[in-house]
Amino acid sequence: MFDANYLNKLREKNPLILNITNQVVINFVANGLLAVGASPIMSSAKEEIRQLVQICSAVSINIGTLTKDQLDLMLIAADAANEFNKPLILDPVGVGATDFRQEAVAKLLRSAKFSAIRGNAGEMAKLAGVQWQSKGVDAGTGSQNLSQIAQIVAKKYQTLVLLSGATDIISDGEKSIYVNNGTKLFEQITGAGCLQGAFCAAFLAVCENSLVALSTAALAYSISGEIAATKSRASGTFATNFLDELTHLSANSIEEFAKITIENRS
Amino acid sequence: MFDANYLNKLREKNPLILNITNQVVINFVANGLLAVGASPIMSSAKEEIRQLVQICSAVSINIGTLTKDQLDLMLIAADAANEFNKPLILDPVGVGATDFRQEAVAKLLRSAKFSAIRGNAGEMAKLAGVQWQSKGVDAGTGSQNLSQIAQIVAKKYQTLVLLSGATDIISDGEKSIYVNNGTKLFEQITGAGCLQGAFCAAFLAVCENSLVALSTAALAYSISGEIAATKSRASGTFATNFLDELTHLSANSIEEFAKITIENRS
Amino acid sequence: MFDANYLNKLREKNPLILNITNQVVINFVANGLLAVGASPIMSSAKEEIRQLVQICSAVSINIGTLTKDQLDLMLIAADAANEFNKPLILDPVGVGATDFRQEAVAKLLRSAKFSAIRGNAGEMAKLAGVQWQSKGVDAGTGSQNLSQIAQIVAKKYQTLVLLSGATDIISDGEKSIYVNNGTKLFEQITGAGCLQGAFCAAFLAVCENSLVALSTAALAYSISGEIAATKSRASGTFATNFLDELTHLSANSIEEFAKITIENRS
Repeated sequence: MFDANYLNKLREKNPLILNITNQVVINFVANGLLAVGASPIMSSAKEEIRQLVQICSAVSINIGTLTKDQLDLMLIAADAANEFNKPLILDPVGVGATDFRQEAVAKLLRSAKFSAIRGNAGEMAKLAGVQWQSKGVDAGTGSQNLSQIAQIVAKKYQTLVLLSGATDIISDGEKSIYVNNGTKLFEQITGAGCLQGAFCAAFLAVCENSLVALSTAALAYSISGEIAATKSRASGTFATNFLDELTHLSANSIEEFAKITIENRS
Repeated sequence: MFDANYLNKLREKNPLILNITNQVVINFVANGLLAVGASPIMSSAKEEIRQLVQICSAVSINIGTLTKDQLDLMLIAADAANEFNKPLILDPVGVGATDFRQEAVAKLLRSAKFSAIRGNAGEMAKLAGVQWQSKGVDAGTGSQNLSQIAQIVAKKYQTLVLLSGATDIISDGEKSIYVNNGTKLFEQITGAGCLQGAFCAAFLAVCENSLVALSTAALAYSISGEIAATKSRASGTFATNFLDELTHLSANSIEEFAKITIENRS
Repeated sequence: MFDANYLNKLREKNPLILNITNQVVINFVANGLLAVGASPIMSSAKEEIRQLVQICSAVSINIGTLTKDQLDLMLIAADAANEFNKPLILDPVGVGATDFRQEAVAKLLRSAKFSAIRGNAGEMAKLAGVQWQSKGVDAGTGSQNLSQIAQIVAKKYQTLVLLSGATDIISDGEKSIYVNNGTKLFEQITGAGCLQGAFCAAFLAVCENSLVALSTAALAYSISGEIAATKSRASGTFATNFLDELTHLSANSIEEFAKITIENRS
């Protein structure tokens, strides 16, 4: 349920990914997309966003430092992405933390069809309407429950889901794919989740099978992190080495390192 | 006049620090807080800021790329921090450079009670109303004078002061604590001061004795820098290694490396 | 047609460079200016921008994440830079991508006299009114054509031009200077061009001969990159090492490594 060759495809096609993202991670997202072989573009202007959606290959929306103006921008971009048939990804950062974020996400999800939603357990639980302990955002009571949460969100919003954590769970509402690669150092750098969301956009932009695109994106991401972690003392060197590994990652490494399991809903 | 165990306490409690900060350093501040063991959250929206103040453990305000809208946001956050009794830190970046910054800082200091103000010599001199050569922001004519400036600011605004430089000076208006650790490489990276301000917030969030919290924050910060500097060629590797050292710093290292002196005003 | 001693001059004078730049690269620009020996300041506020232009040594304008409000800010800054006789640099990031950027750049170029424009081939072709394949922004059909584009832009806007690429071309509309140093890794990090624009500002701020200032800026930049590339696995370590090399670069290294040719228009 993954295709390592999608990585080669991504590099060959070098898709242009339009990011409307948060101020904290915007540089890391741009450098991460470049490192893996995609091409980032960012915008903050309503005046140009429709035109940028038209020329890009996918749109990634992230609400990490959302403002009212930025929400308006996202709504235009999401609408245009649907119109021009571009993959559209939502990263509902901290959706459980404030009413403002919650209402913004609800508005976005009502106004456009998203190809995928990426978030951590706490964010997905909020979208699923499940009770969850949000501060600290622990994985909680086992992957079975997380898998159910992913499935609820996928069905509720008719979308694919990447619920990220120690184990990443990708779901279309029926199947659940578990990616068991990664490193705890991802929790130590800001924007690890945000860049993963941008990776979903990049792989969806160039791959036919969307579910396979997401699981391959998650594998490429977590395997690069796993390799980088072995060379790093802590978060500083990790962030640096991770970018290097994204560039050096090969389809063969994905094949070799992938720890993936699939579960079909009975 | 410091407590190395406060570092363990910080890591154990993992306080959520709300940062309203500048665009230049926002990523470095987030990664630095994560590295030492705190949890960062950033926001740019009036609609949610009160709610975020309520759930966080301390609020750090930094005017490095201030706008009129952001000032409004800061005023709401500062007010809420006082209401919910959360430690509130001000970093008056470049307050001497423009009338706009000076008036904004005056407004902030009139409208709320700040737990601490962190700034360099030039910024503190401006707040103290003392003549100072601002471009280049040299330490000037000796630590005695700087200590007086710190005391004036502390008394004028009924707050604690961390005046940072080759020697950091922490003052409550009576006592002055001198931290003689650090490295000149801090001057070579942007945001070194800004992250130190966020550290003040993180330590104040978890420690009973505020003056001790600030001197311990200054020690943890400058000792990590001192160790990182020994492993770094220049500012690029320093910024990376510094984040690593923040994670690996132990209470024992603080005890071992601390160069600290206290002066009681007679 | 370069003066390695300008690097020493820059470090001695430590010019204050005012940057109105994009969110993606703002941290990298600040750290890069610090690393080479200049002093960065950033601002987002109309209320203070005129005052900051007055105290700074040069102004660098970059439209990478332009908004309508930021354009207003740039127009005030550009006007003030002309009034106070400060070098003024424009980096028309992605000017060919949207009408909004194109109209903004036209407005900026109509409203003020720019000392220099820095951009890649696609951006310069757009300014020159030459047909160009923009996505991917390849250098295209040889340096001869690029040199003509640089000359057209220089004459059309009565400015100096730094057209950056595998070979950087500096032109005043008559002479063309080719800098053949550099590394492909620049294409792998976001903001490489943006920081080069800020370098133009920093060298113009302290050097009498503007054309020589630009070619020396381009040399200092690309030679540091060339040296850093030999020590780097990929973009992560490259960005880190590049900052280190900017600090360690000497006038002697510029003399030693410079690959520069001059062409006079016949």
